[in-house]
Amino acid sequence: MTEKLHLEDLNPGDVFKSGEYTLEADEIKTFARQYDPQPFHLDEEAARDTFFQGLAASGWHTCAITMRLFVESVPIAGGLIGAGSDVAWSQPTRPGDVLHVVSTILDITPSRSKPDRGIVTIQSDTVNQRDELCQRAVSRVLAFRRG
Amino acid sequence: MTEKLHLEDLNPGDVFKSGEYTLEADEIKTFARQYDPQPFHLDEEAARDTFFQGLAASGWHTCAITMRLFVESVPIAGGLIGAGSDVAWSQPTRPGDVLHVVSTILDITPSRSKPDRGIVTIQSDTVNQRDELCQRAVSRVLAFRRG
Repeated sequence: MTEKLHLEDLNPGDVFKSGEYTLEADEIKTFARQYDPQPFHLDEEAARDTFFQGLAASGWHTCAITMRLFVESVPIAGGLIGAGSDVAWSQPTRPGDVLHVVSTILDITPSRSKPDRGIVTIQSDTVNQRDELCQRAVSRVLAFRRG
Repeated sequence: MTEKLHLEDLNPGDVFKSGEYTLEADEIKTFARQYDPQPFHLDEEAARDTFFQGLAASGWHTCAITMRLFVESVPIAGGLIGAGSDVAWSQPTRPGDVLHVVSTILDITPSRSKPDRGIVTIQSDTVNQRDELCQRAVSRVLAFRRG
């Protein structure tokens, strides 16, 4: 078990690399049926003549997988509690993709009103098996001081 | 079936209001087990002594539900294809919440390189049954001209 990290343990430039997540067609369709029911996320045949030219995961599905890998790789004490995130999708994730996430701390801002905490700005890049960037998310996450 | 909207049909200030989505505790836990396995999203008892003081949905789960309501309420021709989104969570969504989404077009930018398309900037507010804002997402979505 990794020691949990507090605000004072974190520094701009710190990098966390996640494990891998293999995305299958069935999972793409299951997520889409419930949360993003559009032809290019639901069915290979229907996806062929769309913008994506083949089955592609919902961008929000890529976000969800990224969170899973983020939770497993960035051990902040008290958990990963987000205030917000700026997400950009440079290309879709696809069936058979093996994804990992590289998270880099960009900035740390201590709270002015609450001295026990601060906001950590973290960039999380979601990368496929060809080292292509699929998604970049810059998130604002809460972290607490020790004690 | 609503007529599908093209780039030239959309104007800043246009508002789209979605139907409702009822969020249950089981769905919060199912999503969290797969994509955001943290105590405050997984179990009422374990959530009690955390920052959220009770079971709360993952912010990414709120994003996913927002997308569902967005797809059902904003009929853009060719589908809703996002380039990115800036999401801010002002409060969590909870078991029993009845959510809806109000989407407002903020801006339309025709593409310089591809005259058949443009980027529509849309603010989607996810609101609960007490009219409290839970999430604001400002998304960049592709739209195409007719023909």
